[in-house]
Amino acid sequence: MDKLLYGVAYYREYMPVERLDEDIRLMKAAGINVVRIAESTWSSYERRDGEFDFSAVLTVLEHMHANQIAVIIGTPTYAIPAWLAKKHPSVMATTPQGVNKYGHRQKMDITSPIYLRYAERIIRALLAATAHHPAVIGYQIDNETKYYDTCGAHVQRDFVEHLKQRFGGDLEKLNAEYGLNYWSNRIDAWEDFPPLESTINASLGAAFQQYQRSLVTDFLAWQARLVSEYRLADQFITHNFDFEWRTWSFGVRGEVDHFSASSALDITGVDIYHPSQHQLTGAEIAFCGDIARTTKDKNYLVLETQTQAFKNWTPYPGQLRQQAFSHIASGAAMVGYWHWHSLHNACETYWKGLLSHDLEPNPVYDEAREVGLALARLSPQLAGLKKQNRVALLVSNDSLTAVDWHPWQGHQFGRHKEHQYNDLIRSYYDTLYRQNIEVDILTVDDPRLSRYELLIAPLLYAVADDSLHRLNQFVADGGHILYSFKSGFANEHLKVRHERQPAIIRETLGASYQLFVEPHDVTLHSDILDIPPASAAVSHWMELLEVESADTEIWARYQHPYWNKYAAIVHKRHGSGTATYIGCHTSEAVLESVLTHLQHRIELRTGADPLRFPLIVKRTINRAGNTMLFYFNYSSEPQDITLTFSRGRELLSDRRYQQGNTLTLADWGVAIMALENL
Amino acid sequence: MDKLLYGVAYYREYMPVERLDEDIRLMKAAGINVVRIAESTWSSYERRDGEFDFSAVLTVLEHMHANQIAVIIGTPTYAIPAWLAKKHPSVMATTPQGVNKYGHRQKMDITSPIYLRYAERIIRALLAATAHHPAVIGYQIDNETKYYDTCGAHVQRDFVEHLKQRFGGDLEKLNAEYGLNYWSNRIDAWEDFPPLESTINASLGAAFQQYQRSLVTDFLAWQARLVSEYRLADQFITHNFDFEWRTWSFGVRGEVDHFSASSALDITGVDIYHPSQHQLTGAEIAFCGDIARTTKDKNYLVLETQTQAFKNWTPYPGQLRQQAFSHIASGAAMVGYWHWHSLHNACETYWKGLLSHDLEPNPVYDEAREVGLALARLSPQLAGLKKQNRVALLVSNDSLTAVDWHPWQGHQFGRHKEHQYNDLIRSYYDTLYRQNIEVDILTVDDPRLSRYELLIAPLLYAVADDSLHRLNQFVADGGHILYSFKSGFANEHLKVRHERQPAIIRETLGASYQLFVEPHDVTLHSDILDIPPASAAVSHWMELLEVESADTEIWARYQHPYWNKYAAIVHKRHGSGTATYIGCHTSEAVLESVLTHLQHRIELRTGADPLRFPLIVKRTINRAGNTMLFYFNYSSEPQDITLTFSRGRELLSDRRYQQGNTLTLADWGVAIMALENL
Amino acid sequence: MDKLLYGVAYYREYMPVERLDEDIRLMKAAGINVVRIAESTWSSYERRDGEFDFSAVLTVLEHMHANQIAVIIGTPTYAIPAWLAKKHPSVMATTPQGVNKYGHRQKMDITSPIYLRYAERIIRALLAATAHHPAVIGYQIDNETKYYDTCGAHVQRDFVEHLKQRFGGDLEKLNAEYGLNYWSNRIDAWEDFPPLESTINASLGAAFQQYQRSLVTDFLAWQARLVSEYRLADQFITHNFDFEWRTWSFGVRGEVDHFSASSALDITGVDIYHPSQHQLTGAEIAFCGDIARTTKDKNYLVLETQTQAFKNWTPYPGQLRQQAFSHIASGAAMVGYWHWHSLHNACETYWKGLLSHDLEPNPVYDEAREVGLALARLSPQLAGLKKQNRVALLVSNDSLTAVDWHPWQGHQFGRHKEHQYNDLIRSYYDTLYRQNIEVDILTVDDPRLSRYELLIAPLLYAVADDSLHRLNQFVADGGHILYSFKSGFANEHLKVRHERQPAIIRETLGASYQLFVEPHDVTLHSDILDIPPASAAVSHWMELLEVESADTEIWARYQHPYWNKYAAIVHKRHGSGTATYIGCHTSEAVLESVLTHLQHRIELRTGADPLRFPLIVKRTINRAGNTMLFYFNYSSEPQDITLTFSRGRELLSDRRYQQGNTLTLADWGVAIMALENL
Repeated sequence: MDKLLYGVAYYREYMPVERLDEDIRLMKAAGINVVRIAESTWSSYERRDGEFDFSAVLTVLEHMHANQIAVIIGTPTYAIPAWLAKKHPSVMATTPQGVNKYGHRQKMDITSPIYLRYAERIIRALLAATAHHPAVIGYQIDNETKYYDTCGAHVQRDFVEHLKQRFGGDLEKLNAEYGLNYWSNRIDAWEDFPPLESTINASLGAAFQQYQRSLVTDFLAWQARLVSEYRLADQFITHNFDFEWRTWSFGVRGEVDHFSASSALDITGVDIYHPSQHQLTGAEIAFCGDIARTTKDKNYLVLETQTQAFKNWTPYPGQLRQQAFSHIASGAAMVGYWHWHSLHNACETYWKGLLSHDLEPNPVYDEAREVGLALARLSPQLAGLKKQNRVALLVSNDSLTAVDWHPWQGHQFGRHKEHQYNDLIRSYYDTLYRQNIEVDILTVDDPRLSRYELLIAPLLYAVADDSLHRLNQFVADGGHILYSFKSGFANEHLKVRHERQPAIIRETLGASYQLFVEPHDVTLHSDILDIPPASAAVSHWMELLEVESADTEIWARYQHPYWNKYAAIVHKRHGSGTATYIGCHTSEAVLESVLTHLQHRIELRTGADPLRFPLIVKRTINRAGNTMLFYFNYSSEPQDITLTFSRGRELLSDRRYQQGNTLTLADWGVAIMALENL
Repeated sequence: MDKLLYGVAYYREYMPVERLDEDIRLMKAAGINVVRIAESTWSSYERRDGEFDFSAVLTVLEHMHANQIAVIIGTPTYAIPAWLAKKHPSVMATTPQGVNKYGHRQKMDITSPIYLRYAERIIRALLAATAHHPAVIGYQIDNETKYYDTCGAHVQRDFVEHLKQRFGGDLEKLNAEYGLNYWSNRIDAWEDFPPLESTINASLGAAFQQYQRSLVTDFLAWQARLVSEYRLADQFITHNFDFEWRTWSFGVRGEVDHFSASSALDITGVDIYHPSQHQLTGAEIAFCGDIARTTKDKNYLVLETQTQAFKNWTPYPGQLRQQAFSHIASGAAMVGYWHWHSLHNACETYWKGLLSHDLEPNPVYDEAREVGLALARLSPQLAGLKKQNRVALLVSNDSLTAVDWHPWQGHQFGRHKEHQYNDLIRSYYDTLYRQNIEVDILTVDDPRLSRYELLIAPLLYAVADDSLHRLNQFVADGGHILYSFKSGFANEHLKVRHERQPAIIRETLGASYQLFVEPHDVTLHSDILDIPPASAAVSHWMELLEVESADTEIWARYQHPYWNKYAAIVHKRHGSGTATYIGCHTSEAVLESVLTHLQHRIELRTGADPLRFPLIVKRTINRAGNTMLFYFNYSSEPQDITLTFSRGRELLSDRRYQQGNTLTLADWGVAIMALENL
Repeated sequence: MDKLLYGVAYYREYMPVERLDEDIRLMKAAGINVVRIAESTWSSYERRDGEFDFSAVLTVLEHMHANQIAVIIGTPTYAIPAWLAKKHPSVMATTPQGVNKYGHRQKMDITSPIYLRYAERIIRALLAATAHHPAVIGYQIDNETKYYDTCGAHVQRDFVEHLKQRFGGDLEKLNAEYGLNYWSNRIDAWEDFPPLESTINASLGAAFQQYQRSLVTDFLAWQARLVSEYRLADQFITHNFDFEWRTWSFGVRGEVDHFSASSALDITGVDIYHPSQHQLTGAEIAFCGDIARTTKDKNYLVLETQTQAFKNWTPYPGQLRQQAFSHIASGAAMVGYWHWHSLHNACETYWKGLLSHDLEPNPVYDEAREVGLALARLSPQLAGLKKQNRVALLVSNDSLTAVDWHPWQGHQFGRHKEHQYNDLIRSYYDTLYRQNIEVDILTVDDPRLSRYELLIAPLLYAVADDSLHRLNQFVADGGHILYSFKSGFANEHLKVRHERQPAIIRETLGASYQLFVEPHDVTLHSDILDIPPASAAVSHWMELLEVESADTEIWARYQHPYWNKYAAIVHKRHGSGTATYIGCHTSEAVLESVLTHLQHRIELRTGADPLRFPLIVKRTINRAGNTMLFYFNYSSEPQDITLTFSRGRELLSDRRYQQGNTLTLADWGVAIMALENL
């Protein structure tokens, strides 16, 4: 991408009146230079089986092109027409709750051959009609694809076939590895496989979810191949991934593996929605961006993010601008809003766009225009920013599934879907974020691990032996790792290791535990860490660690009438590196004290900035090789920063600064410092 | 009705022992002069298909008549016999949850031709056997009829046919008006209509619910026609409507339109259940009575209200008496208790009647007897009381449905069933009630609107253009309207208007908004209203109003770092009248201050009484043209009132009072002042 | 049983590695002398239809026997193989939620003839292979059997047949007794019976649940007969009953009648799980033990109890030991742990065994070893302990069902499943427990009632007339009864009595009520009881009692503006005994004051010990006729006790004590005093 993209999702199909030219006029005025169209509008372009008419799409392409607005074409496959569901009821997915009914998007079965045949036909027809058009710069295949709980008979049959391959046809091995003797669940003939949606066996259930995730990867790869047949050389293929949804975006998903699914794409796209107003912190923007950027080690597209959205997301003045630069500073090549106009019907009526329902300019649009002009002006300096993080956060879909079965908060029996895995990821990530330690996010088996100085591994629960041995080697070779409780506990089949815990990584720690308890009135005591007394309590989970090596340092102990002889946090040099283990769930203040002490001890080269949240600094290098520092003030109070770099120029104000100067950031303010190379 | 009716629902069928004569003896002693019978007892009188035996009903009629107790016959159609469900399973309604199972009442499909055939047969047989009997004064058709979620294939087919009529067969128009292009939901062949119960399109979903409501109106009209073939000239036809149920009665229902459904009746009947003991305020009695009275502009029947009911509803001494006169003062022609005796089996065992399970007199029965004797004595003065309210509250079934789809509290996505519409109706109504402003309750399209000085319009959300234009004309002609936030937003199809909000009514206000937000730490500031600081907070919803006319008065602004430039409450003279708009959800204290100021400004002729809750005054005019004031003390403390009228006589004590006298109301006390005409 | 059994559930089938001999070595070292095996492992021993191979079981028997560890064989029928569900889908139970899916245990239909045929076949095969083995001391038939909501067509057909018998074919009588006229639910042909799972008639619903409970009794009797064909003379038959599950064991179950179901057994077995750590009180151990012991008036087996279990149940040091002796002191002949090793797969992975997943000794195992050695040493004195309680608590499955339909907390309409019955049982039981009043627990129709001095009858709600008359006679004959509110209200068909309440027992009380209310700001006032002001509030339920006899003492009145003329707690001498009635829900402090005063008034011969919780004393008599007192300190603080007996020997320390000595109990400590006969 030569220049920064500033875009909107545009649905001419949903507009209550004809106003394409007026819309384009307002877009141009606001610096919008790209629109995403056509995704989710299948029924508009194939109104009856086999009757295609893309003239309305072509009209949009014409008018956009005439106004220098580029277009990303979305394949419209994530919402099917009513006639298709009526004609072929089998395209609706069968889920544990039964057969889906038509109405909501994403209710079809992405493995249905009939669905795939119809989807292929409209993709081919759409691309045949549009791919040659000079407005088109790329394609988004499908949208926010997941497996939508599909578990019908053919899915289960294919999964059993998959297991047969995986275990070389050896049922005895499968029974043993998954522990199927339990509750008489063993399987002694492949044709006796019981329903997967009702299994109580976490190993089998997790294998099934892993398989379901692979359906998403396969589906996207299939669409990418289809699109490749049509796209021109300079057109890209992307997808719009979403993250765990807790009324905003954060965390890994059990329903899609962002890393493997990205491999079929040219560039990763994501949607990022986040709290706003007094709750805006930028953490979701950073986290989701860190995953997106790491998937392909390059800039990514924010295909959707909010403008006004809901009543609780209408931004304070300044926030829309701050959000845009926050994405850019994380490595985004595009900031795209969902969506241009607010919907006048249906169910997302209150998920507002840049224009309110009145379709006139408004204060939020006005701020977007300010952003658009700034991006256009600064694009030469800000397009193609790179990051060189030396700290990485490890995430794991398998561990997420495992923790859903075996949560660390509350009751530990049966399958939960609360994603407590992401709760802890969030706790660790937020602590890093508030300390201005920027990270890449990757999986434990990523070959790029050796790039990093420090790995942060919360809940590394369900991991193969080999992976843990590689981590041990990483430490031996001089790397540093910080583990949370429950790490190393089970293998990739969720089989708990039958050895002292934390298994395998124990050797790098010189400590182990046999018992774990739920803390009640337990606090941490440390002679080493600086733990604020008010934040010393331990909650939900604690392991009773015993030190086994003279080299192991106890960084914190439990304070409790019975558990006070056990260690809570341990640290040990192993080979040329160190391993640190936090055996309990602590406050984020404790995490911060661990990280602070750890940086000091290991002399982390990418030493974090002394600034702390609400002041956030993001460090990038632009194409010209200049370091660009983005400063953000995530608060309603102005903030002063004493600058520590030699000399730089603030790009938005075009003012020069040097060491010792004070930079004043307005409430919800941004500054972009282009440092002068020495 | 010549005299006040004092009644009970009587189920001889449910009695564990034969005691008809003993029951009648106790009824007579208590002044009971009417019983409602036979509703919900189908299986007792048609024990096998086609075998009718109403001799037991006739026995009751005989004995009642012999003791001067009149009888209202209920058609027994709202609970079907087990044999009918067994023989014709299709009579059970199909709902979004599947096909209903037999057991609970109201589980059949009121549109099933088989159900209707059987229902017609027993109605005809029952009426042929009883209509001529001199004890019978009227008929209650069915009971608390709703559509019971019926949405089977034939209902959906009929609805599609209904839509075809409504849109003149023009699918393109339907797609456009409902915005069906969204998420590929458009329909290009009538036979492709998708299931309605799973639609995500609020416009389509609301049209379906509106259609389902019409099924109730049609069903009651059908029963009324049937009964008309048999009833004698002086026998009335009524129905027992219920209100939204939140463990008591309050609010409009999505499942029935009280106004249209009443048109087939001679007199409207209702059931009203309400909190009791320390929670008794009389507000539910007043609200439900106000709807019932307004439906036909005349007295109504309270066919059911509580005696002891549940443990939390056993009345304090005095409350039963107070409740009875509260109904009368709202215009009730009958106070009927549900029910005579407490049930010894089944599931409403703890919904007690006037007699406890021991079937003996008890303290509540004793108080009912006191009421019965007073009603008999005062009937000549209290029968046929009229009200002349000049204030009306506007309600709207369509807005209720719309707010279910697009709530103003909490998350705004997808369909909710929390009826937040009624939450706000309640907030506005309670404020009026506590200020002793009596209202009629009607719909926005009611031709009687011009009668009123002041209209109160909370959440007038989904209303046709014409209706809003009529309201503007009402103001221009000298009327006054008070709107809440979200009024005027969408048309009758729930399509949001694509113009500045509040649409159409904006011209009477000289103010509009483009943005709305969820308040966080926002309070109201006013130089005009008297807002108690502790009640100044805004919650859930606020619109950022901008004034567009020099004539517009800002009655309150927001206090907030970013939103303080916007208005919260505006008021403007328009033509000869005024319009007031409250752009946010406020405390009831703020509503009270708005209403107080508004009365003062518009010099409301029916100026409210200076008394405030817990003292409630209800104003009526009796047949002789005398003003009758009912005073109620809804508290456990005695209260003194200094009287402001010239001269009057208190009917219960038969004492005379004049201006300046002090009337002392006992705890939970009542006084009825017959004013002397000057 | 000659000696105390100390056991574990042992699943060699679930073990991730072969280590039978190592397991046995560790068991022996810990004093484990019995294992329970084979229950829930059907698929391991019949891997394909009809292919049996018990060689692995025999290996376990061999090795155990060689090491003097006895074996209890469990029939494996409560978890069926996948192939059986696949081959015969009809073995899965149909419940109100539909047909069960395979996966979880206890999802089959215990009345399915196909299931029963397969279950019989594997039982016969297993017993034929193992019954002769000298290691086998007994059999556990099935496990935690309930009816699992089975309500398919054949179950309903059989139930109707059962009703036909019960009512002698008289439908009119059934309609009358169950009150089926209500809501048109009457039945006039046996073939018209509607579905039971959707009935709204509490009487019919309760009859169905009673019938479903009888299926459990029948099923266990059938298994016992089968096993009897094989077992040797000295082998016992037991079953593992469980109690109501609220994440621990407490209370009667609606799904099984412990008393009738025990009749087919030689010895009653139970599982008892309870809170731990700071929440350990021993009350669950005592309650469940009291039921188990009473079922057959003899020692019972604790077949399952926890070791480390969940994070919140990992015991503090000392607690495992304390728990073991607490079981023994209640009359347990066996303390069996669930289970030996922690599971490495499936869903109970975090329900840990004596060994953690590492399969090595750990602190909890070490404490178990200490217990095992002590039990072995003390077995001659502690095997076969008897209790001679003179106080009994009455429980009733029918009343539990009835209270589910008609709860005393919250809303009283429709069927609940909150088991508020057990809430009140718990409140009464805990009060007794904390006062060290030991009880037996039995049903109202038990012929052993006359043994007792004092009966405690909370919520004796649904009881036949005869039973209440027998209780009246018990009082007349010199017994004492304490009733709670709602007692006597309905008959065994849940038909409320149509007479003054409390019906029938009213004559022993000289008091009655007609009204009941939900208390709001109501406290108790008493001149007789010592009620702490802070605990005087009444909640949820209060009956307005009126005294009818000069002999009736009012022990407490209500304090309230309107209800203060009514009595709350009454007491009366009747014949040679007394009856006491608590007409409201009180704090446990009030219950304690009632019990204290009552003991004083009736001069209870088994006067409670003056010690109070956290000090618990359990009194037993051993085979030699010696009184053995067990002292427990359920707290984290050491406690001193001044001893009141003449002379005794503490068995664990082998120290002698005499009157006036101080016994110091460590935190979570135990002492066992063998008193010297005088």
